[in-house]
Amino acid sequence: MKKETINIFIPATVSNVACGFDIMGFPLDNPGDKMSFLMIPEKEVRITSITGADDIPTDPEKNVAGIVAEKMLKAAGFPFGVEITIHKGISPGSGIGSSGASSAGAAYGINRLTGDRWPVRELISFAMEGERYASGTAHADNVAPALYGGFVLIRSYDPMDIVSIQPPEELYATVIHPMIEVKTAYSRGIMKKNVTLHDAVTQWGNVAGLVAGLLMKDYDLIGRSMVDVIAEPVRAMLIPGFDDLKQAAMNAGALGCSISGSGPSVFALSRGQKTAEKVAEAFSETYAPMGIEFEVYVSGISLSGICETDS
Amino acid sequence: MKKETINIFIPATVSNVACGFDIMGFPLDNPGDKMSFLMIPEKEVRITSITGADDIPTDPEKNVAGIVAEKMLKAAGFPFGVEITIHKGISPGSGIGSSGASSAGAAYGINRLTGDRWPVRELISFAMEGERYASGTAHADNVAPALYGGFVLIRSYDPMDIVSIQPPEELYATVIHPMIEVKTAYSRGIMKKNVTLHDAVTQWGNVAGLVAGLLMKDYDLIGRSMVDVIAEPVRAMLIPGFDDLKQAAMNAGALGCSISGSGPSVFALSRGQKTAEKVAEAFSETYAPMGIEFEVYVSGISLSGICETDS
Repeated sequence: MKKETINIFIPATVSNVACGFDIMGFPLDNPGDKMSFLMIPEKEVRITSITGADDIPTDPEKNVAGIVAEKMLKAAGFPFGVEITIHKGISPGSGIGSSGASSAGAAYGINRLTGDRWPVRELISFAMEGERYASGTAHADNVAPALYGGFVLIRSYDPMDIVSIQPPEELYATVIHPMIEVKTAYSRGIMKKNVTLHDAVTQWGNVAGLVAGLLMKDYDLIGRSMVDVIAEPVRAMLIPGFDDLKQAAMNAGALGCSISGSGPSVFALSRGQKTAEKVAEAFSETYAPMGIEFEVYVSGISLSGICETDS
Repeated sequence: MKKETINIFIPATVSNVACGFDIMGFPLDNPGDKMSFLMIPEKEVRITSITGADDIPTDPEKNVAGIVAEKMLKAAGFPFGVEITIHKGISPGSGIGSSGASSAGAAYGINRLTGDRWPVRELISFAMEGERYASGTAHADNVAPALYGGFVLIRSYDPMDIVSIQPPEELYATVIHPMIEVKTAYSRGIMKKNVTLHDAVTQWGNVAGLVAGLLMKDYDLIGRSMVDVIAEPVRAMLIPGFDDLKQAAMNAGALGCSISGSGPSVFALSRGQKTAEKVAEAFSETYAPMGIEFEVYVSGISLSGICETDS
């Protein structure tokens, strides 16, 4: 057994992207997690260090990265084990793919460590097992963007059909993370099981418009299409000040603004970094008086997704 | 008043395009209607001739073209009237936009006759009034493709937002029109008013995939996305032999096959004219033993939509 270490950076991800509930997402250049994978002779998974976040269990059977790693080593019939270290740059429960990053990172890292035996699309299936443990549903709209980079469309889950969509160059994201807890499982649970045909038609018109806007580099169309009549009206009530944040973003020139994943983070897309920075200021000014701690990020869309690093 | 005549060709249209219920459509190169518009000194709308179809009223208040023309002349404050002749190449009740062709044709013709005073997007609103009279709902997924050409996405009805999508060059349509009557109003009436969130997510994944496939010229993705879990399962039962037609089209190499509009016509999309012709043969062989008369068309996607002709 040669001694080998894989170090990676895993980007945060915005899923749903307003109208694309459960089928769309994109990764950010920042923030992100770091993970390292060290091959060990013992046939086991050890999580030796977790920094940057409290309360994440190091027991590999209770940690999404551990769960994914064990499944993959078993599937590979790999004769060795792995030591994993995790540095969380993405706050757990923030709604920008924290569990997705750990799951996708584990899938990527173990695949590299065991000789690249799986294509990316199969890594998604492994990573989704981490998501299933974290939220109760094996959704792919965080792990697929983290693994692919760029905008990702999950056309179908069964069979899995992922479509990469190259975003236009000047698209920037602004994200505010109000430090309140919204559990994904709860936020999914309050969704209605049925929707009116009228709302569904409205939503798929917007999804179609968003994809067309991205591919035709039509920023205004992207903005007009960022309308969510399904999830946002239900979930917005879980996020104090959501309406004010959205109004502030639009006033600052954002193309559109909605909830990232199941919240509580709120994201906006803008044309150009300057506008994205104005949106960040508007977010901060709106939230400062609320008495709730928050973080704000301005970021490009990550085109590479997860990547290897020197350390 | 100078004596002026406008002659136009109006293409048949396929709306819904499998997954895009109420939001997508495209026009065919053939079949199509012909209409002529002659300015007359009397301030009235006369429909002087309808050929190619029986049972269409010439009373302008009971004819979709007459209804659209009267609204437009009134809106324009036009001091003259119009004589309209209609030749139906599109069978009424066929599900390939027969009423839409008459409505869109009237909007186009009257606009030309009165000095091009409206942009295309406003012609759609006028044409939709014809559709409202014909079917009870002012849908745009036939009249917009007829007026714009190419694939058309109706992102939103309120406000009206139409997106033109250039189809890939090798895309061909095959249409079979079983000569049975399916009234649009009835076919809309049997649609469920609510859908499960699960089905809605499936549908908007496919709509997003179809738009991505068209714009990325990915024929396989177009085919994989032509799945309708909302309208087709309900409406297929109104079309004798639908399942056999679909199977025959797929066996002949079609990318996908579904119901055109609210039926009874069934359409398939194929890569290349040769495959589209094979699908036509397969349609004919499947339907010949059914004891129901039918017409079959093979056509490119019309990129121009409605166009003026010499006569």
